[in-house]
Amino acid sequence: MNAELIAVGTEILLGDIENSHARYLSQEFSKLGISVYHHSAVGDHLGRVVEQVKLALDRSDVIVITGGLGPTDDDVTRKGVADACGLPLCFDEAAYAMHVVPYFDQIGREPKPVQKRQAERVGAAVFLPNERGTAPGQYLEWQGKHLFLLPGPPLEMRGMFASSVRPLLVKIAGTGTIASRVLHLFGIGESAAEAKVLDVLQAQTNPTIAPLAGEGEMLFRITAKADDVAHAKAMIAPVEAEMKARLERYIYGYDEDTLASVAFRRLAKRHARVGFAESCTGGMLSSMLVDLPGSSEVFAGAVVAYDNRVKTDLLGVDQGVLERFGAVSEETAKFMAEGVRRRLVCEIGVGVTGIAGPGGGTDEKPVGLVYVAASDGAVTHVERYVFPGSRAQVRLRAAKAALHMVVNLLNDLEVKK
Amino acid sequence: MNAELIAVGTEILLGDIENSHARYLSQEFSKLGISVYHHSAVGDHLGRVVEQVKLALDRSDVIVITGGLGPTDDDVTRKGVADACGLPLCFDEAAYAMHVVPYFDQIGREPKPVQKRQAERVGAAVFLPNERGTAPGQYLEWQGKHLFLLPGPPLEMRGMFASSVRPLLVKIAGTGTIASRVLHLFGIGESAAEAKVLDVLQAQTNPTIAPLAGEGEMLFRITAKADDVAHAKAMIAPVEAEMKARLERYIYGYDEDTLASVAFRRLAKRHARVGFAESCTGGMLSSMLVDLPGSSEVFAGAVVAYDNRVKTDLLGVDQGVLERFGAVSEETAKFMAEGVRRRLVCEIGVGVTGIAGPGGGTDEKPVGLVYVAASDGAVTHVERYVFPGSRAQVRLRAAKAALHMVVNLLNDLEVKK
Repeated sequence: MNAELIAVGTEILLGDIENSHARYLSQEFSKLGISVYHHSAVGDHLGRVVEQVKLALDRSDVIVITGGLGPTDDDVTRKGVADACGLPLCFDEAAYAMHVVPYFDQIGREPKPVQKRQAERVGAAVFLPNERGTAPGQYLEWQGKHLFLLPGPPLEMRGMFASSVRPLLVKIAGTGTIASRVLHLFGIGESAAEAKVLDVLQAQTNPTIAPLAGEGEMLFRITAKADDVAHAKAMIAPVEAEMKARLERYIYGYDEDTLASVAFRRLAKRHARVGFAESCTGGMLSSMLVDLPGSSEVFAGAVVAYDNRVKTDLLGVDQGVLERFGAVSEETAKFMAEGVRRRLVCEIGVGVTGIAGPGGGTDEKPVGLVYVAASDGAVTHVERYVFPGSRAQVRLRAAKAALHMVVNLLNDLEVKK
Repeated sequence: MNAELIAVGTEILLGDIENSHARYLSQEFSKLGISVYHHSAVGDHLGRVVEQVKLALDRSDVIVITGGLGPTDDDVTRKGVADACGLPLCFDEAAYAMHVVPYFDQIGREPKPVQKRQAERVGAAVFLPNERGTAPGQYLEWQGKHLFLLPGPPLEMRGMFASSVRPLLVKIAGTGTIASRVLHLFGIGESAAEAKVLDVLQAQTNPTIAPLAGEGEMLFRITAKADDVAHAKAMIAPVEAEMKARLERYIYGYDEDTLASVAFRRLAKRHARVGFAESCTGGMLSSMLVDLPGSSEVFAGAVVAYDNRVKTDLLGVDQGVLERFGAVSEETAKFMAEGVRRRLVCEIGVGVTGIAGPGGGTDEKPVGLVYVAASDGAVTHVERYVFPGSRAQVRLRAAKAALHMVVNLLNDLEVKK
């Protein structure tokens, strides 16, 4: 069983936007054990969409077409698939009432007449609900081939993939399955991590072990193929144990974990709340935690102390400390952590201060220099980093280092008890 | 003249890496006025590379193939192109000495025997020097088609594109160039915006006008082809004027502008600084402004008032207001905006409070309800929104609405003067 991904959108061919679906869907198919042999992108041009779909029908079992499901004239995906298969395209009143109208009700608007196009069905396709936008998806089984028409906006596409497409693919892919286990690491680079487990990596064909480097962190994905999930998991277990024995101190989480989700879980477990004092990260750290539903349980709030005056007035950082050591210093970071903990009346305070660049660096305090401090009232930890990369990279790595410090601080507290 | 991009690499199909060449090269081709009609990606598999190159030779004038030029067995691009064209693949001693050996000299190593493969020439192709790696590129003119074989690593590919490929393309494409103008809109959906300019859109073939919907905003790109840039720009001007006349109140910026960059510019122009009081956006609003280098000039800081206690203690929101109207209300948003303005001692204060979901909604205050307020000390504006979508979408749209309010507020002040 092999799959093929087609992205429809002139803006992709103009380079206005990245075809980000290709990577996302490839990863998802890889997890399902379905090989993707082709990616392609074509513009909002009926003839070329038809041609590309025909080509895909010739060579692939599963075809995912993203984009071009909107209500306007240049949304040609529905028509393109219908023409390629020689199937009719018909307005479906029931689908319109079920999939298009409710979204407009929710936002308190009337659908425009053109919106009816979004309920035009390709042959006997099944509509797939879109919880995040106006364009429902469609799933068509035709001459043994499986076609999925999904909306272009990434959040809509990913939501629909998770709720409707993945379950269908599991069914389609039939017998034989795969299981994966992901180990998330922080504080070690990809090549250093690989060096520690090179013999394990090289000895494996099933399970396979794939490293993947992220921004300031990395992961290993262990994937086993077997007749059923229990078997696949049993094959993973000894490999995972060996990897953990070698890399334990760098592993912060598993599978879908992120630094934010692990920090959240640890805080919730201890019924503790955190407050952030952010300088160079500028709100990004808070935003990573607030991304998670229910974060109010563990997050009191933050002070983005961009201006030094905010550091003194709102966080109580000592003016003398700022003058003597500077805003980017171990001492300031500590004062920020402790200050925000007290001001926001929470159990743990975190302070982040650094130089994100591109300007503002000196020989002594270069761009990328970041101090992260965390305080639980009794003890204040502080770490110094010099992160490589652009302004965005330095900020992201600083925010991740702060979350990691929260994770470790709570770990230490658990161990001590 | 049309072009096609083929990326070779199994790691792309597995989703391990992004096919970042597609966007980069598309933008470069767009600047040169060469239309890109197809992107594709195939794995390191000779048969599929041959098939894809044959298909491209059938339908495109210029074909760029990236990746698969290394020295190992799975680097099949050279052989794939040779087979697709029915041309021989021969080791070229002179090319080896000129393009492969010097790189190894430079890094102080001996080339391995397998490295000779990198000097295997497809038919009568011309080698393209690689200043950043061991794999030279190749340019082949064959039966009126132009094929470029470029290395996969982005820095090598981009370096080679700039120094060797672009000049060749300018020659190949002959005269003619394109110019573009982008209009950025906020506060109107794609179909409503299109409806206002439908006749303009339909009347155009050169310039063309392409709409593109983003999260809570949209843009129109006007693109003209002409003999030179001045002509192309002159063709854009009247179309732009007509679009502006119809859509003026929704247009917030042009070309590379974003809501954050326009807010930044307007604040800097007035030597004003802004402070944010964020609830549901949770730091995202601040982070969008801090993304921009030099933002300390216009950004004092923020209070992420996730907990109500932070709203009262740090922002001075009246406890009675919170009790009477609730944390998500017009009144609270106003108090937050005014409170943060005073506490952070800045010219403009912005307050955002809402229900990002997925939980926490009621009939009266549904998920997606967001109030945004902005105060300059004299006047406080407030807007009520109900945003559709997921938690992430509601938060992003709320942050954009807040930036847009800053832009408008400063606009109003300019108009009044």
